[in-house]
Amino acid sequence: MAGPQFERMAVIGCGLIGSSLVRAVRAYGAAGSIAVYDLSPVVRDRVVALGIADLVTDDIAKAVEGADLVVFAAPPMAIAEAAARAAPHYRAGAIISDVGSVKGTMAEVLAAGAPDNVFIIPGHPIAGTEQSGPDAGFAELFDGRWVILTPVSDQDEAYAVAVANLSAFWRMLGAQVELMDARHHDMVLAVTSHLPHLIAYNIVGTAADLEEVTQSEVMKFSAGGFRDFTRIAASDPVMWRDVFILNKDAVLEVLGRFTEDLQALSRAIRWGEADKLQELFTRTREIRVGLIALGQEDPTPNFGRNKLKV
Amino acid sequence: MAGPQFERMAVIGCGLIGSSLVRAVRAYGAAGSIAVYDLSPVVRDRVVALGIADLVTDDIAKAVEGADLVVFAAPPMAIAEAAARAAPHYRAGAIISDVGSVKGTMAEVLAAGAPDNVFIIPGHPIAGTEQSGPDAGFAELFDGRWVILTPVSDQDEAYAVAVANLSAFWRMLGAQVELMDARHHDMVLAVTSHLPHLIAYNIVGTAADLEEVTQSEVMKFSAGGFRDFTRIAASDPVMWRDVFILNKDAVLEVLGRFTEDLQALSRAIRWGEADKLQELFTRTREIRVGLIALGQEDPTPNFGRNKLKV
Repeated sequence: MAGPQFERMAVIGCGLIGSSLVRAVRAYGAAGSIAVYDLSPVVRDRVVALGIADLVTDDIAKAVEGADLVVFAAPPMAIAEAAARAAPHYRAGAIISDVGSVKGTMAEVLAAGAPDNVFIIPGHPIAGTEQSGPDAGFAELFDGRWVILTPVSDQDEAYAVAVANLSAFWRMLGAQVELMDARHHDMVLAVTSHLPHLIAYNIVGTAADLEEVTQSEVMKFSAGGFRDFTRIAASDPVMWRDVFILNKDAVLEVLGRFTEDLQALSRAIRWGEADKLQELFTRTREIRVGLIALGQEDPTPNFGRNKLKV
Repeated sequence: MAGPQFERMAVIGCGLIGSSLVRAVRAYGAAGSIAVYDLSPVVRDRVVALGIADLVTDDIAKAVEGADLVVFAAPPMAIAEAAARAAPHYRAGAIISDVGSVKGTMAEVLAAGAPDNVFIIPGHPIAGTEQSGPDAGFAELFDGRWVILTPVSDQDEAYAVAVANLSAFWRMLGAQVELMDARHHDMVLAVTSHLPHLIAYNIVGTAADLEEVTQSEVMKFSAGGFRDFTRIAASDPVMWRDVFILNKDAVLEVLGRFTEDLQALSRAIRWGEADKLQELFTRTREIRVGLIALGQEDPTPNFGRNKLKV
């Protein structure tokens, strides 16, 4: 394996993704040293106790100074303020990136107040679990997953090299890398991630509010499908609040399509259009086959979730 | 452990649930012998090859004759016809049950043409995987899961004994048993199972039809949440077609509530009502905690799905 891709990495915000990144960088030797900044003393104490970083600090200037890679892993709406405070302290030639689920204006957010001699390359690893906080992270989180980078356009040769270096860094952590326009990223993610979360949050809320069916019944008999939605609907509330607000336009657009389709499906049920239902349900089954073939899902049947032994 | 609960069980239809039942009955010794009827020669051949039943037949009369327990595990809308053909051949005192996801008129369906001296007790094990067919079954499927029985009302002492015997049978297979009114069952399942499946089928369909985002992008970047929906949307198309048609009223009712809530959520996103979003997302997280406490879900974080080793 090649030497570390970066001399010194700074991770700003050390929750599930930030701490997984720190662990993965250690495990794969992708950076010489790691500095962690987090606003929360509780998180900082845990990161110190876990012993996964070389420096843990509440001083963002100290975290980023000398770093040739700075990655913001804070909740999306907290990044602007943190980035503005960090910007004056960047080392020349540093790559400034993030891991947020919405890329819309992230390049501008990261560039605000930053010198011209740094490379702004927003990024987004498509990976996660329903858990949060520094203890929930693990080094294998990015293994086999995709990382989307959304480089800004009209840049020079040096910028292209920086993009290649950041791509190589993520590949060292086991990820596959794809470059994409920020606007397109937000539409793709609205479909593959934001809408699924919105729907999951909504159905769990609907179920909790029904008068005819008690909450205890919902929980007891959840193995019929509901259970799977509760997993997604247990994801970090603050992060998801930010995602929906920041990616409003794309989310509302795909939500509109979803709602239209749902009306048509509802109508097919009302009128007993069996063929129409069966055709859709057969088509959706095929998509899963493709997804398993791409290595993005485990084909093992899943039932709550570990098989018990007789 | 007590002796077999039944002398001879007949299973009508041997897919995922039917074959899991057959395997579980063998594993736990819950019946003396097992007869399997299936309409499909392919399924019958597989059941013979698997060697899990004592008799495999295409003659429904032969399957049910002498059986003191008959369980219909065919697709819901196929049961009426199969039950009508089986009914003249029931042994006196036999328990006639099923495993269907809709209980509405199942008691009447099972009773049509049947003699008065059998006990009609519809049932529904809340268990399954996204796979179908006799090879997909396994003995542990019902372990720790709930089975809902919907006994008919105004019955005598002998009927109560039959209900107790059928309950004991399911408990031998590792399940917990709850008795419920058929109408209430259909409303509970509309929330915990039918609506989640409908939503999953719908979102996978919506994603497949978008022009701006390619199908390949949807699959590649599915780890952000979409993946979980494809699992549910890979469930047996014929069975689910039947479920939505048979449980139309309850499904449309909860779908109406879901849609209302979704409109409110959509509005909160449009107007940037951060507090409202965060409040909902925090509340839904708590429901998952309750569900894990009830043993209906594994708390292990889930990420596509087995952890890889560095």
